[in-house]
Amino acid sequence: KTGEMAKLTQLIDNDIFRAYATYATIVLLKMMLMSLVTAYFRITKKAFVNPEDTASFGKGENAKKYLRTDPDVERVRRGHLNDLENIVPFLGIGLLYAFSSPELSTALLHFRIFAGARIIHTFAYLIPLPQPSRGLSWAVGYAVTVSMAYKVLKTALYL
Amino acid sequence: KTGEMAKLTQLIDNDIFRAYATYATIVLLKMMLMSLVTAYFRITKKAFVNPEDTASFGKGENAKKYLRTDPDVERVRRGHLNDLENIVPFLGIGLLYAFSSPELSTALLHFRIFAGARIIHTFAYLIPLPQPSRGLSWAVGYAVTVSMAYKVLKTALYL
Amino acid sequence: KTGEMAKLTQLIDNDIFRAYATYATIVLLKMMLMSLVTAYFRITKKAFVNPEDTASFGKGENAKKYLRTDPDVERVRRGHLNDLENIVPFLGIGLLYAFSSPELSTALLHFRIFAGARIIHTFAYLIPLPQPSRGLSWAVGYAVTVSMAYKVLKTALYL
Repeated sequence: KTGEMAKLTQLIDNDIFRAYATYATIVLLKMMLMSLVTAYFRITKKAFVNPEDTASFGKGENAKKYLRTDPDVERVRRGHLNDLENIVPFLGIGLLYAFSSPELSTALLHFRIFAGARIIHTFAYLIPLPQPSRGLSWAVGYAVTVSMAYKVLKTALYL
Repeated sequence: KTGEMAKLTQLIDNDIFRAYATYATIVLLKMMLMSLVTAYFRITKKAFVNPEDTASFGKGENAKKYLRTDPDVERVRRGHLNDLENIVPFLGIGLLYAFSSPELSTALLHFRIFAGARIIHTFAYLIPLPQPSRGLSWAVGYAVTVSMAYKVLKTALYL
Repeated sequence: KTGEMAKLTQLIDNDIFRAYATYATIVLLKMMLMSLVTAYFRITKKAFVNPEDTASFGKGENAKKYLRTDPDVERVRRGHLNDLENIVPFLGIGLLYAFSSPELSTALLHFRIFAGARIIHTFAYLIPLPQPSRGLSWAVGYAVTVSMAYKVLKTALYL
């Protein structure tokens, strides 16, 4: 099976695919960070949702008071969900875009702007920055994804 | 690197991969539309969740009254989450299915039914249509994904 | 187009890609099961969120009392969302990892541990098992994904 193995290696040697792999991994790692930020706020603000998570605080009413929502925790969770809603389309459409023969420089531009927009979006959401910071950074990532989708459909359309 | 570039192009020349690229992009764009519908209802119904989003309505109690949930906004958000829960499996399993040597006509049938079912599901959720419209359209998309998963495991199983 | 078709077939002949296809499909099917578990609890506990879902229970107040949240339903939904947050990164990073020329045995180790951790996480969440069962199984899947991301970036980094 050395033949096929070589072919898989060749794909990762393609610059466009490498760029996609790099930026897709970066935005996914950024999204994964939201889990750690949520955990950090749940622990420091003592705001949990599962009874079994408060067992170490004792029993009965003593533990029950930590089963509550906290604005900071909820804010991170909304940012996390917004990541899912926007990074999933980027993952799928971006992969197909990488196979639709874009110019390397154009592809890099799309990937870099998307990743930058989502990182800014995260800061805008968590600090939070005044609007329209969050709205604009969201819109930029959205527009980049639509632009890649247009290229995919133009190249591959097969209904 | 012209060699590998050519290979990437060849993939998008494959009819099954093109069909997958087309329908995956369509359902992802449809899912992305849910963000715009949510924003539309948040603005028209004046129902926001982040304090910084209501700053333009003034300060204090005047802005605070727009920090509220609205049934229409919540309905769109549930439709959006249901999309995530069902389109993510389609994206992953569908891509692997495209590589499992299905008949082109069979693959098209799967992709078309899934995309159609999810579009009907969206209308059934947002209008809303009486049940079992939403339940059935959900089940059809679910069954199509399970059928593709069966083909993937039959072809590729390597534990 | 026989040439390209053959190439698609060759990909599924690669052992690492087959292992990825197998484990990605397994964790996605597991995630899809959460929808059925949610539906099961919604029906058995009579706890719905959409008015059109309770129409069969009659009209007015009689149906309205079933529009409520139930702790068991909410627990399954949290498990489902946690799956999305963790399985989406695995899908994307795992696919790129499969193309980054890992050793087959190393790749299998990553895929098997991730799938096992997510299955344990589901049981830990739904039964529920006392902590740190859920926390640990979550962390193991998280660490495996970070390990694959490291390999992808080491192999493919192209900023």
